[in-house]
Amino acid sequence: MSLFITFEGPDGSGKSTMANLIYEELLKRNVSVIKTREPGGTRIGEKIRDLILDNDLSEMNMRTEALLYAASRAQHVEEKIKPNLEKGVTVLCERFVLSSLAYQGFARGQKIEEIQAINDFATDFFEPDIVFVFKTDKITLGRKDKGSYDRLELESTDFHKKVTKFYNSLEKKDNYFFIDASRSIEEVFKDCMSVLESEGGLS
Amino acid sequence: MSLFITFEGPDGSGKSTMANLIYEELLKRNVSVIKTREPGGTRIGEKIRDLILDNDLSEMNMRTEALLYAASRAQHVEEKIKPNLEKGVTVLCERFVLSSLAYQGFARGQKIEEIQAINDFATDFFEPDIVFVFKTDKITLGRKDKGSYDRLELESTDFHKKVTKFYNSLEKKDNYFFIDASRSIEEVFKDCMSVLESEGGLS
Repeated sequence: MSLFITFEGPDGSGKSTMANLIYEELLKRNVSVIKTREPGGTRIGEKIRDLILDNDLSEMNMRTEALLYAASRAQHVEEKIKPNLEKGVTVLCERFVLSSLAYQGFARGQKIEEIQAINDFATDFFEPDIVFVFKTDKITLGRKDKGSYDRLELESTDFHKKVTKFYNSLEKKDNYFFIDASRSIEEVFKDCMSVLESEGGLS
Repeated sequence: MSLFITFEGPDGSGKSTMANLIYEELLKRNVSVIKTREPGGTRIGEKIRDLILDNDLSEMNMRTEALLYAASRAQHVEEKIKPNLEKGVTVLCERFVLSSLAYQGFARGQKIEEIQAINDFATDFFEPDIVFVFKTDKITLGRKDKGSYDRLELESTDFHKKVTKFYNSLEKKDNYFFIDASRSIEEVFKDCMSVLESEGGLS
């Protein structure tokens, strides 16, 4: 069964590592799967990504930023995510709507309902089957050279603390699966795989 | 009194010509004024404009397109339009929210209320003092070499007919001023100037 699976959580919480490990594991098990990311994931989306993350564009308004993320997402859903799911391919995606609620909504101080609304327009209410929410209290933005941080990563510690707080205080929904990301990679991987198994993502 | 004045109407209805003439006339009368356009008008907006109008990006989804126009508009309002008005400068702007309702909404077959909603987010409900709506039945997309048409201008005749129909069927609102754009430049100019005078835009 092809599933749409997203990885959500603060910067440095291990989303990329886990998406990669699960991708390799699914390939090993002969599950048709692709791995993608936001912002980006399509030719147009990557061009939008370049704008959003450009350190030189520091004058970017927060409404502009939220709309650009939504624009990239709209293209991603229609051009890549839906067509792959329809072909029976499982889609692993780093970041989706929750990231906009966390960063453009909660951390920037914009109304969550407004950010949700422009994303409902962008996705036409399309939702993931599984949303892995990585919860952690560690701010782990130390994995890269400072010089390689993008415009969002360069935000203040306070900004990133708000992002973390948003994810940590999310209420459970049917398609949300909370993962304690403060543990070892092996433990986190085991948890994710058991969710995948129970949701029919391994067949 | 500084006013926010937008020029709306189908391609080739004379918006640019009229914005230029009024701009020159206001300068002559020592009114502080700037002229700008959408999509674009700011550094970030012009980069978004390049994406929107790129003929090479023919796979662009219509939700993506609508969100990109809104993103460009959000930046324009916050960075250029509001600060100029606050300094007492009248702002002439070719195209604004109505263009998105006409092109991305009505002509593309998307819900007008949804396009209005993402634009309400983009502008934070900020509205022009004067919206010049150029009404005409002529499809006049013949002023340029075919090779220089952008992605939107290259749309079908049917698409442009819908745009024209949208503008021609608009109901009057307080800040809408309907202009019969099928007449001579001199007559249209005279009409626009008398609206400006009655709305206090010449002092």
